Amino acid sequence: METGLSAAKLLFEAGLNVVVLEARDRVGGRTHTIRNKEVQYVDVGGAYVGPTQNRILRVAKELGVQTYKVNVTQRLIHHVKGKTYAFHGAFPPAWNPFVILDFNNLWRTIDKWGEEIPMDAPWKAPHAAEWDKMSMKEFIDKVCWTRAVKRFALTYVNVNVTSEPQQVSALWFLWYTKLCGGSERMFSVTNGGQERKFIGGAGQISEKLMERLQGRVKLGRPVISLDQTGDKVVVETLNHEIYEGKYVISAIPPTLTTKIHFKPDLPAVRNQLIQRLPMGSVIKCMMYYKEAFWRKKDYCGAMFIQDENAPVEITLDDTKPDGSVPAIMGFIMARKATALTNLSKEERKKRICEYYAKALGTNEALHPVHYEEKNWCEEQYSGGCYTAYFPPGIMTQYGSVIRQPAGKLYFAGTETATQWSGYMEGAVQAGERAAREVMCHMDLIPESEIWVPEPESVDVPSKPFDRTFLERILPSAQGFAKFLTFASVAALGVIAYKKGFIVPPCKH
Amino acid sequence: METGLSAAKLLFEAGLNVVVLEARDRVGGRTHTIRNKEVQYVDVGGAYVGPTQNRILRVAKELGVQTYKVNVTQRLIHHVKGKTYAFHGAFPPAWNPFVILDFNNLWRTIDKWGEEIPMDAPWKAPHAAEWDKMSMKEFIDKVCWTRAVKRFALTYVNVNVTSEPQQVSALWFLWYTKLCGGSERMFSVTNGGQERKFIGGAGQISEKLMERLQGRVKLGRPVISLDQTGDKVVVETLNHEIYEGKYVISAIPPTLTTKIHFKPDLPAVRNQLIQRLPMGSVIKCMMYYKEAFWRKKDYCGAMFIQDENAPVEITLDDTKPDGSVPAIMGFIMARKATALTNLSKEERKKRICEYYAKALGTNEALHPVHYEEKNWCEEQYSGGCYTAYFPPGIMTQYGSVIRQPAGKLYFAGTETATQWSGYMEGAVQAGERAAREVMCHMDLIPESEIWVPEPESVDVPSKPFDRTFLERILPSAQGFAKFLTFASVAALGVIAYKKGFIVPPCKH
Repeated sequence: METGLSAAKLLFEAGLNVVVLEARDRVGGRTHTIRNKEVQYVDVGGAYVGPTQNRILRVAKELGVQTYKVNVTQRLIHHVKGKTYAFHGAFPPAWNPFVILDFNNLWRTIDKWGEEIPMDAPWKAPHAAEWDKMSMKEFIDKVCWTRAVKRFALTYVNVNVTSEPQQVSALWFLWYTKLCGGSERMFSVTNGGQERKFIGGAGQISEKLMERLQGRVKLGRPVISLDQTGDKVVVETLNHEIYEGKYVISAIPPTLTTKIHFKPDLPAVRNQLIQRLPMGSVIKCMMYYKEAFWRKKDYCGAMFIQDENAPVEITLDDTKPDGSVPAIMGFIMARKATALTNLSKEERKKRICEYYAKALGTNEALHPVHYEEKNWCEEQYSGGCYTAYFPPGIMTQYGSVIRQPAGKLYFAGTETATQWSGYMEGAVQAGERAAREVMCHMDLIPESEIWVPEPESVDVPSKPFDRTFLERILPSAQGFAKFLTFASVAALGVIAYKKGFIVPPCKH
Repeated sequence: METGLSAAKLLFEAGLNVVVLEARDRVGGRTHTIRNKEVQYVDVGGAYVGPTQNRILRVAKELGVQTYKVNVTQRLIHHVKGKTYAFHGAFPPAWNPFVILDFNNLWRTIDKWGEEIPMDAPWKAPHAAEWDKMSMKEFIDKVCWTRAVKRFALTYVNVNVTSEPQQVSALWFLWYTKLCGGSERMFSVTNGGQERKFIGGAGQISEKLMERLQGRVKLGRPVISLDQTGDKVVVETLNHEIYEGKYVISAIPPTLTTKIHFKPDLPAVRNQLIQRLPMGSVIKCMMYYKEAFWRKKDYCGAMFIQDENAPVEITLDDTKPDGSVPAIMGFIMARKATALTNLSKEERKKRICEYYAKALGTNEALHPVHYEEKNWCEEQYSGGCYTAYFPPGIMTQYGSVIRQPAGKLYFAGTETATQWSGYMEGAVQAGERAAREVMCHMDLIPESEIWVPEPESVDVPSKPFDRTFLERILPSAQGFAKFLTFASVAALGVIAYKKGFIVPPCKH
């Protein structure tokens, strides 16, 4: 919902008359800060922010919302095959040289393929047709060689886009990753997308934007119809109110635009595109404890848990920046979100604690003092979280209309962004761009000002993620295996020759 | 829309009070018969019917609507690589033995894998997880060996489900084919799904069902909300009418249920399923000529056109059963429907005629006297045609709730059928089943009577499609190639030995 409010703020500040129709009885959309005495405040929706997300950082700063760094001081945990391995850094380390090479090759390939994908037109990539026919499952099977890396790649897709590798197009996933600044920026805490959270909660941003709009945000107004047959666009809400405007900006995920009855019908390709962009599946779970006992064991609370029976696959410390309200945030994602959606809240809580106890190696995890969760799969007015995904074959056949206006109807929403699509940053970028498209159509700004680059945040600067020379030139695991085989055969040959096992062929 | 009207008829005849809310200003849904002086009548939507589709045949007969056989008396055409080959039978023949074996293996594999898929629960198939992760593109790449058969398999998917192989789950496609009685029943004209059409048009069935319902069908009433928070289910329409009932049957494709605002929200898995079942893409095109000139050349008018530049991939003779109003019906499907959707009707007409002229080998095709088309991609209240598809990974993760009632809301629609899903037959089956679910919940019938087997139509009997002994035992093309290689090597060895090229190793 930052997307709609960002658009409205920009138009409002330009002196235009705006109204924001919000389906729910709150603003925020996929961000939502809950307050109560047990937790003070907690983001049960979108929360993380980091370097290169300069637009949301700018908006937050203007509204007086500050960030703090997520705790990764202590060691992270990789829990796999029932064992816990502690480490520092973004990715769990490996010891097997094949696994090391295979990991290196995976990240390198994701980013290398991404290089040729235009951020504003992924369907125009030279290999678009080929990569869009491929699911991420096929990509993983093609690129990864070791079971350890295949398993991690599955988690990587689950964590980043809350869906399964077979469900998403490789072209789309590589584009999505590129928009975050690459595989490491997307996945990292330090210097990456999860570096920070907002003190007081991300929900404040929408709440404060609503204040700025001075009563122009109408809550509890799901839009049921949009009529463009007359001079003005006429919008009706579920409670039978009529709103008229010169322009409308759709600030909802593409799939939710299906909830609107259009007159005339949407253009054919859009009518079909909006059936094809489902929202991911995730349940966000916060477990509260009397103390941050994991820190005593030199664990920061961040865990990758790879076990088909574990509900949660990834966690982060969710303790407040002053050390109060100790908590661990975990995501139940993709197939697991669907499988566990019909359990009771108590049952999910119990199962999560059991796995935290296993991974952290202490029964202290079994005794939370409070639990908060949000199942985004059941939200009618989000459809799911974090964002929409493109199944195989959709980007190249239908994707090019994603931002194409339908008459006086313009499209915002983080799904239409060209940087950090799916994130709060993408929401702001898309909202402001759509607002400027309208202003351009009204002849208030030239076309060249629709897309505006954003200066880097001074408070949250980014460092580059350069690949080392070694990372760039190391062979893939397959390549190394082939080399080893060749080298072995050659070495055996040399030895055999020297030892006299090989003799010239006899002559008859 | 046969599905809603079939449900209503059954309930009405049981003495219950029903009302049918229809979004459009006509009944019929994805069937639609247009009448005008040029064409008399024409089905611009669902039209074909054949043996084993016993429910729609029963309903039609009761309503006095008769069938006629689609003309396949003369030769069919396979137009590929710019050349036209004439043939008789369901599938184009081949001469290359590898292609023959490859074709045989493709149909055999589709049907063999289908054997293990439960019609009412494809997600429970022993290999469900594996096959659902696979797209039909992967299936084709895995099973087909020759370029000719791969190319035909692409057309086969396009034609049967109006989508691309990479977009659809193999598990779903194999289930869908099984529900039609197998690959040959689904694709055939004679003894298959396209054997017949309705004299006067398929649209009559819905029209006559509406008459039977004596004013209980309300046109132009798109449903905008459904409230189950009270004792009764309260439904509101776009024109602000309120309808109350003890039960509601949803008779629309799953994706269109997103157009309804639900109170309370739908269950989580259904909320996500309905975002994941897009409708196929097709433009149905009827070209009218002064005479059925193709018959003079001993062509029946049925063509498979395999050429990336050809708009239409498949055609059938659409001349009236008495020989009047000569016409050829063609489908623009899947990627081509999207690519050509923004052309003018005139431009599409021109391009189609050009390819008919090439395939039929006569310029007579360039001079139609009339043209009718229907682009289902732009229909808000269908979403597309013929039916919904399951992308990879959806059936096993979300599919099991497809017929699960949500409170007093029951689900019909051909997508929920267990025989001929996607066809008019499936629509009738699903509608009657949903009606009986409601009657069962009202204690009017026992649970055992919800699913009712249908006796075979006496007017349209089916013949079995048995595989011959040879078809069952022939090797695949790969198998044959391996055998050939092995046989060649062995034969060469024998020859070499006999000719004295092979000598015992020398001894030192």
